[in-house]
Amino acid sequence: MNTGEPSETLRSVPPAYLDAHWVVGFVDGEGCFFVGINPHPEMSAGYHVLPEFTVVQHQRDVQLLHRLKQFFGCGVVRANHGDRMCYRVRDSEHLRARIMPFFEQHPLRSKKWIDFLKFRKALLMMARGEHLTPEGIQRLRALASTMNTGRER
Amino acid sequence: MNTGEPSETLRSVPPAYLDAHWVVGFVDGEGCFFVGINPHPEMSAGYHVLPEFTVVQHQRDVQLLHRLKQFFGCGVVRANHGDRMCYRVRDSEHLRARIMPFFEQHPLRSKKWIDFLKFRKALLMMARGEHLTPEGIQRLRALASTMNTGRER
Repeated sequence: MNTGEPSETLRSVPPAYLDAHWVVGFVDGEGCFFVGINPHPEMSAGYHVLPEFTVVQHQRDVQLLHRLKQFFGCGVVRANHGDRMCYRVRDSEHLRARIMPFFEQHPLRSKKWIDFLKFRKALLMMARGEHLTPEGIQRLRALASTMNTGRER
Repeated sequence: MNTGEPSETLRSVPPAYLDAHWVVGFVDGEGCFFVGINPHPEMSAGYHVLPEFTVVQHQRDVQLLHRLKQFFGCGVVRANHGDRMCYRVRDSEHLRARIMPFFEQHPLRSKKWIDFLKFRKALLMMARGEHLTPEGIQRLRALASTMNTGRER
């Protein structure tokens, strides 16, 4: 019907494979490194520290979030606000063993790199148990307060 | 002071080099392919067709937009709304000669791929002069109306 039309030569479904550099670019755009610190009477220092790595996406691209989950081999895909879905990693072991080494080897190009460095610092502090002492909590709160500035979550 | 601390071993400034796959991932997150069609009494078919490729970013990462401009070898970096900056390519020749071939060779992974295919179709129609006829404008308006659905600009 429309032979020789250049637009017919492109596949309508893009390849499923995610390149590591693609993941970095996508996270530079859509990712978030966050350290939540909330009062919690049952914790020894009175606070619960919850680091999380998230990527939010419109539900029409939820399959990309599932591919990210597969790529990192950890995390969950959950509903976010409204028509948004979210890929999320909260497990500290997974954050330290999978998310952290990946971005150490594949640096983000945006200012999110600074957030990642602080996020990584928080994970290392937690690995040393510093979140279980009042002094450690003070340091973690100071660190977390400087993250994700100039950008909505 | 803090020798042996792993966080000291990472550079605080990420590398400037942009990998092609990174660009695809970043555009999957932050890019937009748009075809504006506005009434214009001086155009032969009564409408002006304005395709544009944009990437919007918080001003703190304006240097990334300049690197995109360098990467594609065309376009401009401009102020967008509020504290946002924008990398934008509107020149039809640049869109056809630089933006289109890049994404043909490096497919987007998100549903933005579908927008790109429609955008590309519009560029090819315009290269054939179809935007100068009322019938072509009708087809372009129908095409443009199906783009960027399910996602704010």
